[in-house]
Amino acid sequence: MGKREPGDAQPYFSTHVFVCGNRRPEGHDRGCCASKGSEKLRDYMKARVKEEKIPGIRINQSGCLDRCELGPCAVIYPEGVWYRLDSREAVDRVIEIHIVGGGRVEDLLLPAGK
Amino acid sequence: MGKREPGDAQPYFSTHVFVCGNRRPEGHDRGCCASKGSEKLRDYMKARVKEEKIPGIRINQSGCLDRCELGPCAVIYPEGVWYRLDSREAVDRVIEIHIVGGGRVEDLLLPAGK
Repeated sequence: MGKREPGDAQPYFSTHVFVCGNRRPEGHDRGCCASKGSEKLRDYMKARVKEEKIPGIRINQSGCLDRCELGPCAVIYPEGVWYRLDSREAVDRVIEIHIVGGGRVEDLLLPAGK
Repeated sequence: MGKREPGDAQPYFSTHVFVCGNRRPEGHDRGCCASKGSEKLRDYMKARVKEEKIPGIRINQSGCLDRCELGPCAVIYPEGVWYRLDSREAVDRVIEIHIVGGGRVEDLLLPAGK
């Protein structure tokens, strides 16, 4: 597990969210996050944090996060907490409770180690 | 700054690397990481960590990490350390010294807060 060292610079983003944007061909047995709407949900999340003027945050799209069956997936660093973001409401709750409030949205957390 | 909480699951990946794959039109004044070869360097990094059988690691492409002028950029989480990965040699050194060895490759680190 990577660890921060005393000499490390402060992380450039306080909150760095990666939303899986992987798209597989229709019918692939693992499915994919893009087919479940992840691209639009990522755009929505980006717009919402801008509206809220949340400082030090970046919402990025990423390649396949390899948890396809559980998606649409997102991971928030540096804390390394994973969520299923399957609706605008889910995005709103993660912003409000986790990102702004420092809590966890228990019913949207991905299960450990699967 | 996001913090881990006592009840959080272990991060799904011990080492999660995001290599910027953003491509802008030729001549854009900020440039972009893809025009500096980031896509092939990401593929090389992915192949190298597979060859080395490094456990618990994922090498992802990401959208624009917004440090275009310093690229090709990559960030390693959970530690949140940023590097300029501008050659295969740079990739090899980051794998050997940072990812495997737990150190830092000082001459490739991105400057803090720029």
